[in-house]
Amino acid sequence: VTHTDALIVGAGPAGLFQVFQLGLLDIRAHVVEALPYAGGQCAELYADKPIYDIPGIPVCSGRELVERLHTQIAPFTPSFHFGQLVSHIQRQPDGRLLVQTTGGLEFLCRTVFIAAGVGAFVPRTLKLEGADQLLPGYLHHHLPDPAPASPEVLIAGDNEQALQAAIQLSATAKVTLVHRRDQFSAEADTTSAFRALVAQGKIRFIAGQLTGVTHEAGALKAVQVLDSEGNTRSVDTQQLLLLLGLSPKLGPVADWGLAMERRQLQVAPESFATSEPGIFAVGDVNTYPGKKKLILCGFHETVLAAFAAATLIRDGKTPLLQYTTTSTHLHALLGLTKTSADSKS
Amino acid sequence: VTHTDALIVGAGPAGLFQVFQLGLLDIRAHVVEALPYAGGQCAELYADKPIYDIPGIPVCSGRELVERLHTQIAPFTPSFHFGQLVSHIQRQPDGRLLVQTTGGLEFLCRTVFIAAGVGAFVPRTLKLEGADQLLPGYLHHHLPDPAPASPEVLIAGDNEQALQAAIQLSATAKVTLVHRRDQFSAEADTTSAFRALVAQGKIRFIAGQLTGVTHEAGALKAVQVLDSEGNTRSVDTQQLLLLLGLSPKLGPVADWGLAMERRQLQVAPESFATSEPGIFAVGDVNTYPGKKKLILCGFHETVLAAFAAATLIRDGKTPLLQYTTTSTHLHALLGLTKTSADSKS
Repeated sequence: VTHTDALIVGAGPAGLFQVFQLGLLDIRAHVVEALPYAGGQCAELYADKPIYDIPGIPVCSGRELVERLHTQIAPFTPSFHFGQLVSHIQRQPDGRLLVQTTGGLEFLCRTVFIAAGVGAFVPRTLKLEGADQLLPGYLHHHLPDPAPASPEVLIAGDNEQALQAAIQLSATAKVTLVHRRDQFSAEADTTSAFRALVAQGKIRFIAGQLTGVTHEAGALKAVQVLDSEGNTRSVDTQQLLLLLGLSPKLGPVADWGLAMERRQLQVAPESFATSEPGIFAVGDVNTYPGKKKLILCGFHETVLAAFAAATLIRDGKTPLLQYTTTSTHLHALLGLTKTSADSKS
Repeated sequence: VTHTDALIVGAGPAGLFQVFQLGLLDIRAHVVEALPYAGGQCAELYADKPIYDIPGIPVCSGRELVERLHTQIAPFTPSFHFGQLVSHIQRQPDGRLLVQTTGGLEFLCRTVFIAAGVGAFVPRTLKLEGADQLLPGYLHHHLPDPAPASPEVLIAGDNEQALQAAIQLSATAKVTLVHRRDQFSAEADTTSAFRALVAQGKIRFIAGQLTGVTHEAGALKAVQVLDSEGNTRSVDTQQLLLLLGLSPKLGPVADWGLAMERRQLQVAPESFATSEPGIFAVGDVNTYPGKKKLILCGFHETVLAAFAAATLIRDGKTPLLQYTTTSTHLHALLGLTKTSADSKS
């Protein structure tokens, strides 16, 4: 179990800047993130799209904003734990919070900051009859690496990832791609290449929806596809790839018993504390009177949350506000000057 | 009288970003600023000092931040009125606010945003017996341009501006500089040059404090100086320059009848509205539970104030939040695309 003063759930812009604001108060943070990288919506939804309303930055892409925040928080050396969803959170007798993740990590925390945005980005899935009886290794939500060696693969999806996987696997397997209509959301070049392979008979395309799977002792044998005329056919396959994109899910946050309003966590605007002592919520995941879901508002929220958390961690003693322009203490924390302890060593 | 939906008092970072947030809601603003330039504390107190806590900007100087904000708000073409202090604000029968400035400007406003920081930066002055009976042109708070042609000039002050003025005027006039002790806050080079001229008898230095003036029919004749031994002497002069630096003054804001707490304006954190309908306060001038006087918090405040003001201006209709990344309407407002109206012309 990892002991920490602060655990941040979500590494989008609010989560990253929470690291910075805690760091200025000399509090180090661990960060748990569902995706394999930081950035949240900035990375997932608009990495290459321009943002015009970050104060003092007339324009930057989502990716650039994340890079800038990474640079800014680097002095505070946050510990990132990627590919982890929080699965449980439980109050301990001493008041601390035990947080467990899907990857088996455990944190014993003085304070927790939920910066989960619109939720963790997890692969979209489908409810398929019989799928719960498949053994592992037959149904995937991403292209496995190495690629499956089975003679037949069925892919559901119409995005870049789905069509790319179909193109790649068609070199070694009999590939079927199922999507409800003959129209795709992938890049134009990818779509052309895909259509060419379909025309050459190297990929089979079926317009329809998956409804269920057939298995033998847990091994996938076939997939049922419902076409637009209402007929169901069975398509033999040994591998099923559901490449339907990522979907934000609030996930277990919704089950922690915190006060919520329309899937947002209710917080007090003087501290961004939730209804549960020691748990704060910043960024798009929270709500309070006047709330606007803007990155720059999330930044402000991290400040007041950091001060409220520091007060808890220091048993009621509120830290003084110091300024990065003038404070030699903050300059030392930011690594701009040697501390007296450093210079002695 | 100028009619406007929004008047912003103060052109520091909060005032500048208020222009931006109002602009995104298609509301144009006039800006009144006491100094002859924008930037507020960023320009006056730390133009060349580094700021480390603007989100996404690992480091920038006060001057650079102001330049960045200028660039960002340029599409909304704010009308700046520099060198103006608000002198009066009065509710009109139709609910609008009549704002008058020291320079004689009048604005009839739907909404007013007080972004006055720690107050307007105004020249420090001294209470001198008899000074209220001087005619204009004898006592100055800056070096007049053109420089006074009088044979004798007395300067009070120890800063860069005071010593520079003494050096410059010593070429053409008999200059006396008064400061309470023989120690100065000007740059080292300026201080050396000043001391050299004193040693050469080209500038007279007196350690002491000004207490009053002698005049003849409103024309300055002499200044009384109290020295450290408690003796008062009279120093003949025809011109008096009080070059004592700038001091922040909340000024008339304090007299507008708004709810205050320790010289801060009390605001509601869901709208940053003051106790007076249509008057908002953002940045260091306001207070609310949890308030931290940070530039980044002021930025957030301008967002909620802009939405609350837009709701007032549009008779209760709250504008939808749109995103600069995706909204073609905002892109048109930001001047990134031609509007359909533009392309027709």
